[in-house]
Amino acid sequence: MNGAVGFGVFSIDGDEPRVGFRVGQGVLDLAASGFSSELSEPSLNAFLASGRRTWEAVLGRAVELVEGGHDVVPLEDATVHLPFEVADYVDFYSSLEHATNLGRLFRPDSDPLLPNWRHLPIGYHGRAGTVVVSGTPVVRPRGQSKEPDDSAPRFGPSRRLDIELELGFVVGVPSVLGTALPPAAFRDHVFGVVLVNDWSARDIQAWEYQPLGPFLGKSFATSISGWITPLALLEDRFVAPPVQDPEPLPHLRIAGNWALDIELEVELSDTVVSRTNARGLYWTMPQQLAHATSNGASVRTGDLFASGTISGPDTGSEGSLIELTRNGARPIGVGDGSTRTFLEDGDEVVLRGRAGNVELGEVRGTILPARP
Amino acid sequence: MNGAVGFGVFSIDGDEPRVGFRVGQGVLDLAASGFSSELSEPSLNAFLASGRRTWEAVLGRAVELVEGGHDVVPLEDATVHLPFEVADYVDFYSSLEHATNLGRLFRPDSDPLLPNWRHLPIGYHGRAGTVVVSGTPVVRPRGQSKEPDDSAPRFGPSRRLDIELELGFVVGVPSVLGTALPPAAFRDHVFGVVLVNDWSARDIQAWEYQPLGPFLGKSFATSISGWITPLALLEDRFVAPPVQDPEPLPHLRIAGNWALDIELEVELSDTVVSRTNARGLYWTMPQQLAHATSNGASVRTGDLFASGTISGPDTGSEGSLIELTRNGARPIGVGDGSTRTFLEDGDEVVLRGRAGNVELGEVRGTILPARP
Repeated sequence: MNGAVGFGVFSIDGDEPRVGFRVGQGVLDLAASGFSSELSEPSLNAFLASGRRTWEAVLGRAVELVEGGHDVVPLEDATVHLPFEVADYVDFYSSLEHATNLGRLFRPDSDPLLPNWRHLPIGYHGRAGTVVVSGTPVVRPRGQSKEPDDSAPRFGPSRRLDIELELGFVVGVPSVLGTALPPAAFRDHVFGVVLVNDWSARDIQAWEYQPLGPFLGKSFATSISGWITPLALLEDRFVAPPVQDPEPLPHLRIAGNWALDIELEVELSDTVVSRTNARGLYWTMPQQLAHATSNGASVRTGDLFASGTISGPDTGSEGSLIELTRNGARPIGVGDGSTRTFLEDGDEVVLRGRAGNVELGEVRGTILPARP
Repeated sequence: MNGAVGFGVFSIDGDEPRVGFRVGQGVLDLAASGFSSELSEPSLNAFLASGRRTWEAVLGRAVELVEGGHDVVPLEDATVHLPFEVADYVDFYSSLEHATNLGRLFRPDSDPLLPNWRHLPIGYHGRAGTVVVSGTPVVRPRGQSKEPDDSAPRFGPSRRLDIELELGFVVGVPSVLGTALPPAAFRDHVFGVVLVNDWSARDIQAWEYQPLGPFLGKSFATSISGWITPLALLEDRFVAPPVQDPEPLPHLRIAGNWALDIELEVELSDTVVSRTNARGLYWTMPQQLAHATSNGASVRTGDLFASGTISGPDTGSEGSLIELTRNGARPIGVGDGSTRTFLEDGDEVVLRGRAGNVELGEVRGTILPARP
């Protein structure tokens, strides 16, 4: 298969939303193609909950139909909806390069990487209710901020609106409260992956985030792909992760190839401003899931776990503007000859991911001016 | 009316869960008493979404029936369920005394109150999927921790398991993404309040919380009342809040009596170990809601916003054990003649609230040993 592949929810001409399987520029209407009842709902949640055996049977049959020339709906005729009801949304901080870059900017007077960072995948909960599907415009948030020289905070439209390029995984099969999941349980619980743009208002975030973490600097919107790419289609993209030093505690150890070789890029105003790869993430997805449940917390169908910003070691491989522009000190050029530090009204951002022949669903969003 | 009053979900002998209106030790079965279809669901969400006019009509009719001697189910025969599907869970940090006490313990070398605290209600997102109803046992969480003298972190059962006494409000009517709610919109969106025990593993929290805030130190369980007390029953308990200095920015200003005069107590092992009052909270509920949406984030039916630990200025009015025992340095006595610093396996904690004649639904939980 070629092009973007994944399961999502679509409608045509205002009809009832239904589950579809996208391959490239066509969408197979699963509800209308003789699939089981999990696929007749207006969200993927029932299918996600059905478990690995069903996932793989449905995928196999869907691929067979598409490759056999079954009728598909042209993507351009479809309205794409949020593919699943997001239960809880967790955002990690799993890129060593990103955590180091951010630490340097936010805490210039201390060690950029905090002492806990190499021992556990740092993460926090985000707002599930404001996760939106690719294509949804993003209204520039207002908020409180205070520059170092200001005597008091101000309230107004964010002046440092940023993106974060992330890869998220989606839980299908729930776990039981009070029971930890080992890293090896990952494939039985997780259905697939989506690209995530964790829009971030850096001025709001900088003023609010101590001591309890990001809140309004992030909660105004988080965009995800309209199509979940099943892990089963990425089998040949699992590669060795970076070496972890020190070795993680036993509950976070897992042998094998658990990094995902997915080439990523960020386009801003028709210009690719960053290219990187998800395989460089220090903490792997099975470790993230094991950590999140190590205290007995349960996961539910529809839980979304995002990687945190994916930045590589090289200039031009950073997954956010605050890193790419060194907090605005080094503007970057975009296609029309202008430059950017942070996002301007009207800017369109597109995240793309490619895993060999398979593309992930893109994440597209345009900035609208702040509301009065 | 006297005793605990509120709307919840109950079942009898394994029957279908249904909506009930509790007064004292009796529960009016609303689905069986001629109410509208919103009240025939196995959760309160549809009723919560129906809006203030319906809330008040249903409350009026339910009170009329109970006072008229309508048959009620004895509470002791009912199994009480989580009263609503929690959408997003936000936890604030609105008690000046608590924030000061915790700042002193967690950051002994700097100003206990951070510079942002008096300008906005600090908050963060918690895990909605692990909110449980009063009576649910709480398994002692495992997690990573590192004492200052340890050379490396350890993983094991929390040794500093704590409670947090909080008051939460529950959103009924959703708002629109991209649009802020002014503080004055509070009563049109918020249905009522519940007591909240935000169980906290202090050792896990201390090691993980920088820079992105609490995660596994909190996410293993959060207990709430089985009964939501409608704001309409608390009209005469709204009182003047503490003076705010400096005056908040315009979007957080609201005139009038928005503090809630609710007497609170914490019982541990049959001993009342803390008595305080919600009226002392520095940030009011309408300010919390306005802040949370000030960046355009939307709220949904079932959103739970908790106050953060409610501590008063006096010894014995602190809402957590870490404060009551000065981080374990001053054990407190409990009923059987023993002492406590943090929670031991088998300990039962009960939170109670009283607003004049009306009681809030209690929050009860017993600690089970960590799972192997």
